[in-house]
Amino acid sequence: MDAFDLKILETLVANGRESHENIGRVLNLSRPAVHQRVKKLEDAGIIKKYQAMVDWSQLGQTINVIIYVKINATVFKNIISDILKITVTDTFLEECHRLAGEWCIILRIRSTSTQNLTNYIDELLKINGVVATSTTFILSTILQNGSAIIDSV
Amino acid sequence: MDAFDLKILETLVANGRESHENIGRVLNLSRPAVHQRVKKLEDAGIIKKYQAMVDWSQLGQTINVIIYVKINATVFKNIISDILKITVTDTFLEECHRLAGEWCIILRIRSTSTQNLTNYIDELLKINGVVATSTTFILSTILQNGSAIIDSV
Amino acid sequence: MDAFDLKILETLVANGRESHENIGRVLNLSRPAVHQRVKKLEDAGIIKKYQAMVDWSQLGQTINVIIYVKINATVFKNIISDILKITVTDTFLEECHRLAGEWCIILRIRSTSTQNLTNYIDELLKINGVVATSTTFILSTILQNGSAIIDSV
Amino acid sequence: MDAFDLKILETLVANGRESHENIGRVLNLSRPAVHQRVKKLEDAGIIKKYQAMVDWSQLGQTINVIIYVKINATVFKNIISDILKITVTDTFLEECHRLAGEWCIILRIRSTSTQNLTNYIDELLKINGVVATSTTFILSTILQNGSAIIDSV
Amino acid sequence: MDAFDLKILETLVANGRESHENIGRVLNLSRPAVHQRVKKLEDAGIIKKYQAMVDWSQLGQTINVIIYVKINATVFKNIISDILKITVTDTFLEECHRLAGEWCIILRIRSTSTQNLTNYIDELLKINGVVATSTTFILSTILQNGSAIIDSV
Amino acid sequence: MDAFDLKILETLVANGRESHENIGRVLNLSRPAVHQRVKKLEDAGIIKKYQAMVDWSQLGQTINVIIYVKINATVFKNIISDILKITVTDTFLEECHRLAGEWCIILRIRSTSTQNLTNYIDELLKINGVVATSTTFILSTILQNGSAIIDSV
Amino acid sequence: MDAFDLKILETLVANGRESHENIGRVLNLSRPAVHQRVKKLEDAGIIKKYQAMVDWSQLGQTINVIIYVKINATVFKNIISDILKITVTDTFLEECHRLAGEWCIILRIRSTSTQNLTNYIDELLKINGVVATSTTFILSTILQNGSAIIDSV
Amino acid sequence: MDAFDLKILETLVANGRESHENIGRVLNLSRPAVHQRVKKLEDAGIIKKYQAMVDWSQLGQTINVIIYVKINATVFKNIISDILKITVTDTFLEECHRLAGEWCIILRIRSTSTQNLTNYIDELLKINGVVATSTTFILSTILQNGSAIIDSV
Repeated sequence: MDAFDLKILETLVANGRESHENIGRVLNLSRPAVHQRVKKLEDAGIIKKYQAMVDWSQLGQTINVIIYVKINATVFKNIISDILKITVTDTFLEECHRLAGEWCIILRIRSTSTQNLTNYIDELLKINGVVATSTTFILSTILQNGSAIIDSV
Repeated sequence: MDAFDLKILETLVANGRESHENIGRVLNLSRPAVHQRVKKLEDAGIIKKYQAMVDWSQLGQTINVIIYVKINATVFKNIISDILKITVTDTFLEECHRLAGEWCIILRIRSTSTQNLTNYIDELLKINGVVATSTTFILSTILQNGSAIIDSV
Repeated sequence: MDAFDLKILETLVANGRESHENIGRVLNLSRPAVHQRVKKLEDAGIIKKYQAMVDWSQLGQTINVIIYVKINATVFKNIISDILKITVTDTFLEECHRLAGEWCIILRIRSTSTQNLTNYIDELLKINGVVATSTTFILSTILQNGSAIIDSV
Repeated sequence: MDAFDLKILETLVANGRESHENIGRVLNLSRPAVHQRVKKLEDAGIIKKYQAMVDWSQLGQTINVIIYVKINATVFKNIISDILKITVTDTFLEECHRLAGEWCIILRIRSTSTQNLTNYIDELLKINGVVATSTTFILSTILQNGSAIIDSV
Repeated sequence: MDAFDLKILETLVANGRESHENIGRVLNLSRPAVHQRVKKLEDAGIIKKYQAMVDWSQLGQTINVIIYVKINATVFKNIISDILKITVTDTFLEECHRLAGEWCIILRIRSTSTQNLTNYIDELLKINGVVATSTTFILSTILQNGSAIIDSV
Repeated sequence: MDAFDLKILETLVANGRESHENIGRVLNLSRPAVHQRVKKLEDAGIIKKYQAMVDWSQLGQTINVIIYVKINATVFKNIISDILKITVTDTFLEECHRLAGEWCIILRIRSTSTQNLTNYIDELLKINGVVATSTTFILSTILQNGSAIIDSV
Repeated sequence: MDAFDLKILETLVANGRESHENIGRVLNLSRPAVHQRVKKLEDAGIIKKYQAMVDWSQLGQTINVIIYVKINATVFKNIISDILKITVTDTFLEECHRLAGEWCIILRIRSTSTQNLTNYIDELLKINGVVATSTTFILSTILQNGSAIIDSV
Repeated sequence: MDAFDLKILETLVANGRESHENIGRVLNLSRPAVHQRVKKLEDAGIIKKYQAMVDWSQLGQTINVIIYVKINATVFKNIISDILKITVTDTFLEECHRLAGEWCIILRIRSTSTQNLTNYIDELLKINGVVATSTTFILSTILQNGSAIIDSV
């Protein structure tokens, strides 16, 4: 890991399809040198994968919320496993973290309607060990995965 | 948008480098048909971009926190603009959303040390209009951008 | 639905007994045209019903409170059903919504005395699945069902 | 005010268009007797008005939220006056009460999109004396103005 | 009840041993007239009783706290009954109210030491139906039972 | 201070008009001995005063609330002084303590109507240094000044 | 206990290895007089023990947090006993107090990694009677055991 | 740093006066070897200092509280500096940490009386930039600086 590698990582976070040629031009490295470095980062698992970023609002998924979950924490793994299995029409789990607070799980959910969101919350509440949920609107997203989503706020 | 398109989107969220050939095989479409559909999704801006997912913990960034920010909301845009300009050694902003609560900004931050995190919080507090911050540990991440990070919880 | 329909709806929310003649005069429509539009809105269920707005304080119901209810949400429907069955002397449920928070039910209650209100809360607490309640005074009402209650605040 | 009057009030809250004939039949009163009683209740201002109940979700207003407002309470009247003047596309204030808590104003708002809701919140925050807002989803409405909205929960 | 009665009540709240002669002089009433009025107020139960106000801090009871209690409210009466039975060395319950919140009982307790206070809290927690307690210091008392305790704050 | 004195204090808290004769009979002391002890307790200021306990609800004061006040604490004394000067029709301050929390003043208020209570809260909010108030209902009082108010809960 | 003793205590809190000679010079006491006084303080148990203060961050223990624990308080002693038995790699309990709040236990924990901290929290949650935990970062320590840790803040 | 060093550190935290001879016997090291290791740990600053642990309750300091402080965080250093300068009779600051929450300073204070504690809180509130304080009782201390204070809970 040197400064070149870090710069390559930042470039690929911002644009996972940036050509090695362009990266090389900016860093003053040859294309093969960039290629070799990217491959090393991938092989080492430092670059875990590439992901398409989808504009879900174009597909009608205009409801974007954060749900906090309070659980019987002794069954943490089972609860996460059950959360990952929830299927509700047009409703998708996008983020799931364990937090160090009383509300120990934070989810980010996209959906097309309040009715679907309600169904998702009902599914959460059916999970054995889930004690309560609390849901908060996301009004707008400025930055995701370290890369700007909205250029002008 | 049909069921094929939706399946293609889900595949590319899970793996942005999945070959059109493989996608076609699963969906029973020809490679060129997949190619054309992906291009349409990209041209329509439904696929906004591709991003490398980096395993920052391998680079020593073992501190992963959520920071809530309470602001003088009349200056929302300026504050976001100032947040995006913060630079602290080895400390990176990965998510930034506006929420519909009293704590109206949520940030996700990675850093290498408590000292750097403290410096980041100090920079936040220097921003004109930031009233208070509150920081919470992420103990583990199960899913990010709609794609599993940890296979076995 | 056009601008005329929307204007008719707003008029009937403010005054459900406004004559079609008056509405027509304001909108520059004939009385039968207004009649036909109102009928369509009623038939489509867009106008669900008409309700008398009663000044309960004149009938001694000077206590007007909001009660938040925390429940075992897996039994949501049964709990709502039990709440709707509560009968306490001179004490009336006026609003009941499900919220997306830990306190997932919000009630608005009118009563004639603290004693009756206490009895209502006791009935709530007897319902299987109700975990806790929290009650807040309404000091004054400015607007209800989209229509001003108090002209001068 | 006797038991007949109270029964008449309850009937007209449930259905403001109930015919005097029907009411009379149920209460064992003549139609003119009902008519006279209703007129007295209206003249005394006990029946303040009649309002159409509109199914806004049919008109695309699928977002239904509660907003709590924290203010510099010394300017309470001016703030309410400013709130009543807010105009945001397709976004309507349906309820407004003063509460006896730190969050001393509760609003119920309907809107067609998160973007419009955000604009409404921005307008709230521009009002001189508004310190903070907090917004909560209504997942479903069971009862409004003392009359059932949803028959089967 | 007239203005004289009210004035007599206020005087006896401030000083329950004020002579009827003095009260009469201030109100321009004869001593027997005052006597008769006080007797009526006592007989009607408007004056419920007289209480000595003791300066407990002189007796070493320097710890004065408020304890909030969260309970399984269905057993409200039994819990109050159990609270009234608690006996802990040099520790006294001075106030006990039922509140309309989640913390639905408020107690005021005087004690001589943190150890005794801890014992009292332990006794509270042993009561069947008590879920949690929360304790807050009283730093100073300005007014009690409508009568000033501390002349100069 | 011995066990006799303590017993005398408890008796006079429960009933400030208990005759010395009765007290003596219970404690096996002569009437003059009781008289002398009570006088000593009064002279030492251990018995500060006697107060009439009034049943305000009989006088129409059916609203009994706790108000928490958040202040700019540097002006604590002035704020208390201003609170003690508030006069609102038929509305009385019965308790006032300083607490060791963010809500650092707790008041107990009796009033005849929500309107008067609102006026009292408005007066509180006009005081320079008062930041916010929060009001909670008292549903019932079990014990006051160390003496039972309600015999059977 | 006199002023000399108090001064000796303060000196030994700041530096438990301060020589009796130096202490004597400052207090204008002979070395044997200091010796005798220290011995008395130790014998009386006023000086309970001496402790080495270790700079754990030098040993890689860079994570320093406060954990609040909510419990079924009736089993307080057993829970504390179970907490003291927890063993997690490179993770140490440094402080443990019982508090008078709903979160009735406060712990201070040092660890080398988020993973170890997570394991510690998991062990806490396995204890019978522990209901919930909440964890907060310590960003810096200014003073510990009454003695400055950081000279320049 | 090896296992011997770690064991030596733990021993000296539990008892800073443990003889090198005893430590050596337990670890199967010679006395000079222990001496040399301790010296290295002291020279490296891993052992920062030794501190006497005083039983303040024997000296009448029976009030032991935690105070949370909310500040204008831009002046963090000045506020800490002012806190360290507070002097109140018989009242001592024992711990002071900066936390990553809205209440960003936590203090532990010992005092002899509520009056002195009140004075300390008043001094805190006079500091420029301190917004609010909140105080919580410590009912008992089980462990301090990684060493048991109370043997039997």
